[in-house]
Amino acid sequence: MCAIVGVFNHPRASVLAYYALHALQHRGQEASGVVTMYRDEERDKARFGVHKGEGLVLDVFRDHQLFETTLKGRSAIGHNRYSTTGSNSLANIQPFHFSYSQGLFSLAHNGNLTNTRQLRESLKNEGAIFQSTTDSEIFLHLIARSKQPDAIGRIREAVRTAKGAYSLVMLSEHALYAARDPNGFRPLCIGRIKHDEGYAYVVASESCALDILSAEYLRDVEHNEILVIDDHTARTGEFTSHYISDSMEKSSHCIFEYVYFSRPDSRIFGHQVDKVRRKMGKTLAEESPVAGTEDDKVVVVAVPDSGNTATLGYARVNEKTYPTRYEIGLIRSHYVGRTFIAPGQNTREFKVKTKFNVVRGVLEHRRVVVVDDSIVRGTTSKALVSLIREAQPREVHLRITSPPVKHPCMYGMDFPSREELIANHFDNEEAIGKELGVDSLRYLSVQGLMDAVPHAPGTGYCSACFTGDYPIEIDVHADKLSIEL
Amino acid sequence: MCAIVGVFNHPRASVLAYYALHALQHRGQEASGVVTMYRDEERDKARFGVHKGEGLVLDVFRDHQLFETTLKGRSAIGHNRYSTTGSNSLANIQPFHFSYSQGLFSLAHNGNLTNTRQLRESLKNEGAIFQSTTDSEIFLHLIARSKQPDAIGRIREAVRTAKGAYSLVMLSEHALYAARDPNGFRPLCIGRIKHDEGYAYVVASESCALDILSAEYLRDVEHNEILVIDDHTARTGEFTSHYISDSMEKSSHCIFEYVYFSRPDSRIFGHQVDKVRRKMGKTLAEESPVAGTEDDKVVVVAVPDSGNTATLGYARVNEKTYPTRYEIGLIRSHYVGRTFIAPGQNTREFKVKTKFNVVRGVLEHRRVVVVDDSIVRGTTSKALVSLIREAQPREVHLRITSPPVKHPCMYGMDFPSREELIANHFDNEEAIGKELGVDSLRYLSVQGLMDAVPHAPGTGYCSACFTGDYPIEIDVHADKLSIEL
Amino acid sequence: MCAIVGVFNHPRASVLAYYALHALQHRGQEASGVVTMYRDEERDKARFGVHKGEGLVLDVFRDHQLFETTLKGRSAIGHNRYSTTGSNSLANIQPFHFSYSQGLFSLAHNGNLTNTRQLRESLKNEGAIFQSTTDSEIFLHLIARSKQPDAIGRIREAVRTAKGAYSLVMLSEHALYAARDPNGFRPLCIGRIKHDEGYAYVVASESCALDILSAEYLRDVEHNEILVIDDHTARTGEFTSHYISDSMEKSSHCIFEYVYFSRPDSRIFGHQVDKVRRKMGKTLAEESPVAGTEDDKVVVVAVPDSGNTATLGYARVNEKTYPTRYEIGLIRSHYVGRTFIAPGQNTREFKVKTKFNVVRGVLEHRRVVVVDDSIVRGTTSKALVSLIREAQPREVHLRITSPPVKHPCMYGMDFPSREELIANHFDNEEAIGKELGVDSLRYLSVQGLMDAVPHAPGTGYCSACFTGDYPIEIDVHADKLSIEL
Amino acid sequence: MCAIVGVFNHPRASVLAYYALHALQHRGQEASGVVTMYRDEERDKARFGVHKGEGLVLDVFRDHQLFETTLKGRSAIGHNRYSTTGSNSLANIQPFHFSYSQGLFSLAHNGNLTNTRQLRESLKNEGAIFQSTTDSEIFLHLIARSKQPDAIGRIREAVRTAKGAYSLVMLSEHALYAARDPNGFRPLCIGRIKHDEGYAYVVASESCALDILSAEYLRDVEHNEILVIDDHTARTGEFTSHYISDSMEKSSHCIFEYVYFSRPDSRIFGHQVDKVRRKMGKTLAEESPVAGTEDDKVVVVAVPDSGNTATLGYARVNEKTYPTRYEIGLIRSHYVGRTFIAPGQNTREFKVKTKFNVVRGVLEHRRVVVVDDSIVRGTTSKALVSLIREAQPREVHLRITSPPVKHPCMYGMDFPSREELIANHFDNEEAIGKELGVDSLRYLSVQGLMDAVPHAPGTGYCSACFTGDYPIEIDVHADKLSIEL
Repeated sequence: MCAIVGVFNHPRASVLAYYALHALQHRGQEASGVVTMYRDEERDKARFGVHKGEGLVLDVFRDHQLFETTLKGRSAIGHNRYSTTGSNSLANIQPFHFSYSQGLFSLAHNGNLTNTRQLRESLKNEGAIFQSTTDSEIFLHLIARSKQPDAIGRIREAVRTAKGAYSLVMLSEHALYAARDPNGFRPLCIGRIKHDEGYAYVVASESCALDILSAEYLRDVEHNEILVIDDHTARTGEFTSHYISDSMEKSSHCIFEYVYFSRPDSRIFGHQVDKVRRKMGKTLAEESPVAGTEDDKVVVVAVPDSGNTATLGYARVNEKTYPTRYEIGLIRSHYVGRTFIAPGQNTREFKVKTKFNVVRGVLEHRRVVVVDDSIVRGTTSKALVSLIREAQPREVHLRITSPPVKHPCMYGMDFPSREELIANHFDNEEAIGKELGVDSLRYLSVQGLMDAVPHAPGTGYCSACFTGDYPIEIDVHADKLSIEL
Repeated sequence: MCAIVGVFNHPRASVLAYYALHALQHRGQEASGVVTMYRDEERDKARFGVHKGEGLVLDVFRDHQLFETTLKGRSAIGHNRYSTTGSNSLANIQPFHFSYSQGLFSLAHNGNLTNTRQLRESLKNEGAIFQSTTDSEIFLHLIARSKQPDAIGRIREAVRTAKGAYSLVMLSEHALYAARDPNGFRPLCIGRIKHDEGYAYVVASESCALDILSAEYLRDVEHNEILVIDDHTARTGEFTSHYISDSMEKSSHCIFEYVYFSRPDSRIFGHQVDKVRRKMGKTLAEESPVAGTEDDKVVVVAVPDSGNTATLGYARVNEKTYPTRYEIGLIRSHYVGRTFIAPGQNTREFKVKTKFNVVRGVLEHRRVVVVDDSIVRGTTSKALVSLIREAQPREVHLRITSPPVKHPCMYGMDFPSREELIANHFDNEEAIGKELGVDSLRYLSVQGLMDAVPHAPGTGYCSACFTGDYPIEIDVHADKLSIEL
Repeated sequence: MCAIVGVFNHPRASVLAYYALHALQHRGQEASGVVTMYRDEERDKARFGVHKGEGLVLDVFRDHQLFETTLKGRSAIGHNRYSTTGSNSLANIQPFHFSYSQGLFSLAHNGNLTNTRQLRESLKNEGAIFQSTTDSEIFLHLIARSKQPDAIGRIREAVRTAKGAYSLVMLSEHALYAARDPNGFRPLCIGRIKHDEGYAYVVASESCALDILSAEYLRDVEHNEILVIDDHTARTGEFTSHYISDSMEKSSHCIFEYVYFSRPDSRIFGHQVDKVRRKMGKTLAEESPVAGTEDDKVVVVAVPDSGNTATLGYARVNEKTYPTRYEIGLIRSHYVGRTFIAPGQNTREFKVKTKFNVVRGVLEHRRVVVVDDSIVRGTTSKALVSLIREAQPREVHLRITSPPVKHPCMYGMDFPSREELIANHFDNEEAIGKELGVDSLRYLSVQGLMDAVPHAPGTGYCSACFTGDYPIEIDVHADKLSIEL
Repeated sequence: MCAIVGVFNHPRASVLAYYALHALQHRGQEASGVVTMYRDEERDKARFGVHKGEGLVLDVFRDHQLFETTLKGRSAIGHNRYSTTGSNSLANIQPFHFSYSQGLFSLAHNGNLTNTRQLRESLKNEGAIFQSTTDSEIFLHLIARSKQPDAIGRIREAVRTAKGAYSLVMLSEHALYAARDPNGFRPLCIGRIKHDEGYAYVVASESCALDILSAEYLRDVEHNEILVIDDHTARTGEFTSHYISDSMEKSSHCIFEYVYFSRPDSRIFGHQVDKVRRKMGKTLAEESPVAGTEDDKVVVVAVPDSGNTATLGYARVNEKTYPTRYEIGLIRSHYVGRTFIAPGQNTREFKVKTKFNVVRGVLEHRRVVVVDDSIVRGTTSKALVSLIREAQPREVHLRITSPPVKHPCMYGMDFPSREELIANHFDNEEAIGKELGVDSLRYLSVQGLMDAVPHAPGTGYCSACFTGDYPIEIDVHADKLSIEL
């Protein structure tokens, strides 16, 4: 998973991109980069400003002089990378930037292509060279090789050729482009800032990146849409829109973005994440409440911070039937960064301990319901249950606001292989619960999940990780879609 | 404010100190250090292992080989520093370590002395040299110059000479010492780990540092007590205890530790912080509820994470009288470290925006009660209110679970000067509320605060920052107790 | 100017490349990189090991674990870069590595192409994308696009298309290739190490890189030659050789390599550099001696270290006619790295002072001859003369062992533009000498230079920087051959 | 060995100290520091500016903003440290700075005390604490504890109490002090810069530090002298001078400073180093020439750079008797910094190879005389001979311009222990020469060395490392004078 952002027509475009990437830090912590476009007046040529590095946004852009000296220009795109693949990782940090027959071009991609191997093979046979191990590099060649007369034609041809999941921001010398694949797996929205010289436009993976810039949310980039923002747009506020596929199908929004990945204060696919998540908690409580009495109230606690709102929803519904208290029983440490390697005790259990603190007084001797958003490998859940047990609750009931994850994601979510998913190791939730050490475990049903997410004409969801129903055909032999140089 | 920790008789003493310092990171983010004591077998001499640096614990000890190569030995003390004072800061990072007539000695201090200037003057006149600008260095000279025959005598003489607030851990070649001043301003507790070779002892500012080590909490180091842990203790589990002042007075625990500073999952001064904080919230709701109707419920949100439990308490009581909903309306970013310097927009408002996200859907068109623990300068509160207003709530009511801060702390809390405290700029809470931009502002009363904190024989509190009643006389002219080389 | 190196069939290929690059540090201090090729046994695929960075070899490869963990494999190529061009410099650090239709390939280049613009234009029109601002990237596309059936055919086609100066090392999954352009502007030699498992081969810009590895010098890679080293070579010691151009012309070795650039202990173009340089000094003394008397001997001093041997030659010949003493009058500082930015006094004169120390006792009251290899801008010479004058010599005579530099180099030497060359600002050497502040200035004549360098059948020299006779036609409008993305 | 420097009354005092330390880099590469004194106008108090770090001067002061923001003030002292002692090394980096009864004080020391243990013991018994493992810290306590009424009295009392070798620069709030012990082991000189506001004074270990600042050399600080530079001096150019010991004895200048340690372009103990060194070479040639014939000339080469001038002297004398050629046969690499750790081949031989290059053409088939300044362990010489042998000279004769080093230095030169000195392992120079692999080895005789160094009334030399005659009595059991915390 990754974050992308684009800014057009702002005197401090790179600074805006930086803040937006910071707001989207949760979508990728491995590496970060910003590419700007500016005019070299002396030579009367367009030039790139480029800065990339491994680590958190705050670390990569620690030297703020960068924004003055290197990242010049009124337009910029940026990218946060989630996972690292192999040794030569510097070449993999996005945005990519290059020069081709039509001038300078830069691109950043969130998602995963499903026909990468075939495309790389055929492009290589035409003489293309690949310098990274990302599927995103495919777009560069497709755009450069297109024979279409104009930029939008080239981009459209390129994205039609690629199959799979892609939200894209692209920067040419004269325009910013934003696109989402015909299924619309990954979110992308567009916002606007009015300033003295017209409108600045901001495109971002989630609306929380607009909020940090006090930008006005306009709408989502639609699935199957390529959106063009140029000087005309900056002056008039009007942007143009093109379709990728001629036939407009129903979308396949990634339902896991609602379950876990997006920030609760974001609006994605047109809806507030925290409201959807609360609905999931409510539906789960309807499906699988936990009984308590007035003398022995059920204590409902969240696994912070992703599970907070869903937990409130769960508690609200459960208390309608049984005496219930919502409590803060787990506290998340602020000071654990991306990697906490524990010297001498490098176990999962210890890592959980440095990430979460148990509030003993809240849990001791109680019948506790712990609400979490999902279980993938199960190792963190197991360690967390063990940590909670140290506070000596009488009972621990685990409630998960999504169904069991049983299938890998082919569209950009970094799940492990099929074999590593705990739900594939046990027959039913009782068995998984036993493995995790809880008194009971209940998942939200697939139907319950579908009832909880918003439905509108043209809107559909990809729930392949839960159901195995992949919206785009994939090579049945591929468990993961990996690329090597 | 600072954190201190001591470990005795553990094969990986420095690793334990490291984890404990990590758990106490909230008490000081400027710098961190660990000093160990080990036997150089070849030369049959005691030796120090030392590592210190500026920044977070995770950063200072990033190289884990340190624990093997440098920080050797079965005993260790550590320190997190809160504030930075001037340029030559490396010399100020604790623990201090030195060689004197009785061998090697190391010391770490949390608190603030009130007779520093006089002591430095008189020590200098006796030929002492000062290499740091900390008041803590005073202890080194007092211990080294004492003519008492044994270590405990020297330490006792030293701490009797110093006045003010001090929780101390000290390491000699043969023992670990822990002490709290006769008023007991700052917390300090002791825990134990049983292992193959007897007992390991851990002393720490708060009990959450014991929890991360799965150490058993034994008790607080008492005010006016010096506690000695040595090889006999390690074998038998028995430690000895000495009194500082001959007369045992009532304590003056820092009440602000309960209000804000300590972690909610800690036990300090013998009680769970989160329970005390919840009581504060309840009392505040009794004193200053916010009215709502069934159609227009009061929405109560916390300023995360310090205000979370108090907010729950507030909501519980308020809902007994008025229709009320506890909601998660503010989310705290995980990725903002200690310093976020915003390029180009270096305002307080922007910093608040990178630290908190507003969940718009929860607040929009609502009558919102925001519960926070305290207001010091008021600048953050003001920016936060402005941020919340962006989500367009109908009303914003601010409730503070402590009284107005009007007086500087002379005992170690890093409040600004009297002039910078917002409560000294306005006549009453209405005026402050107006300045902050809220529809109403209410503080907890001093009496309400006193009712909320635990009372036991011998227990008293320092509430000087609220009341101006300083338990230890201080120079009336001093607004702050600063030292210069 | 740059350094290149290639290693084939050695268990520690990257370590050898590292040492070789260190020995060639004088050819490029801006950046350094090594790419290795190894077999990923698990996946039965070839893989790259890559490490690059800005700065000196010792700095870029400071972490020696790299050689074990990243730079695995029995073959490697490496590169030192001389100059930095613009902001996005990371993309410009060589060797380049990429995947194409025939598998993995890596390349490093020393030299400068003269038809870069046309080639980039036409390649772009075919759909190629350029990610660096180096002319070297051209080769990647030419090789990948060639329709020749085998590697040597593709490489030959590529280098025939490119015009200008290139010494190349290239690594495929199965072989190491070394090539020099038909003019043979830049040096390249080949050596061999016998070990238990056959022969390891080393290709390097200068033979000093073979010496540091105790490799046996075999011969130069000839101009117009592509040399193939593969497993057969490693077993048998036999390598194959191919010609680039069908017609074998006389070479155009860069005469400036002898004058200044190469290390004195290297053998290039088949000859020992120090011997050639000494000959230059001798010829200069014959052309332009300095007269002295027995009571007032001429004191001859070198500008260390490049001028040392030539100075000895000068002194030997001068003393045959006039009483002469060779002395060490200037000492070079060991501790000035690549960039010494002087705070507060950022003048050329100050930089010279931190680089050279004058031995006052040797120069005071003397008639001094300073021998240097060349004058380019003249700024350093002027500052040096001023420094020497502080030691109060009676006379200062400057002798330069090469003719005036009047024309830019189009084949890889980083001279400034025509306007910045001091020789283009003055009519004759008297005027230049006056500007530099010396009592007399004499350059070696072009004829004298030609007499001093070795001549063999087929050997010719490029002396374009002195004469303006460019062996390969270049765009008359181009003062420099610069590229932009 | 270390370097010290002091600057008084210059608007950019710290910048001058920085350049001076850079010029003295050869005297210490482990760590570097500068302390300045300035007036905090706001508080009307003196303040320190401090910056220290491990590594070369260029690295420690890489951030030039330091000179503006931190290292403010018109006076400064600085220090380069040669060796590192143990783990807690940060506390050992000089200059030391502290506050005591008379205000602020800072001190930097070159040399080694011989009564450190006794002094530390007795100071500890009086209540002193030691925070470093340097003998230099002794001075701090002695000065602070002195009961003398004024600064010069305190300093004089302190340095009289310490025994051994010390050149010192000290900075009080109002004056710069420079002192050399009564034996005058280590050099120290004083220079002056005239500027608009009077005179700036510079004190430095060697005169090359004055040269880089274009400061006028005034004279040496004499042995047994304390020199005071204050505002009066700055205005009038008059400084005052005090004697340490009442009786003025003959000096014991370290003869090894002439042999090897000082820079050839420096003037120390009143004389040009390069002239003294040349005299050593001449004397050695008189004692131990190497015979050659017209057909088979002796080729004399230096081990650069320390041996260069002595080698010229040797060649000049040898050629009076035998046909002889001075040649440049070894070249020193510019790019090897302080530590070159060779991956995989961490042998002495390899390190020599990265430091020196052999010019094969000069040595091949020749009768070669290699002139070096000294042999300590012999390991480098052995590796160097082996390297030279690769160039296949017919004979290798080693000539050393000093006698065999047989005794450790107690006064600051970092020789290894007695057992590690090669001269203590063999009966005579023939045996050592055999071990080193040369055809003959000759050292300069002690008498020859004494004849070569300058003699003036009151001047004597310490040659203890050659003769075992220690000018100051030392503990016979001590092989080294080490301190531990």
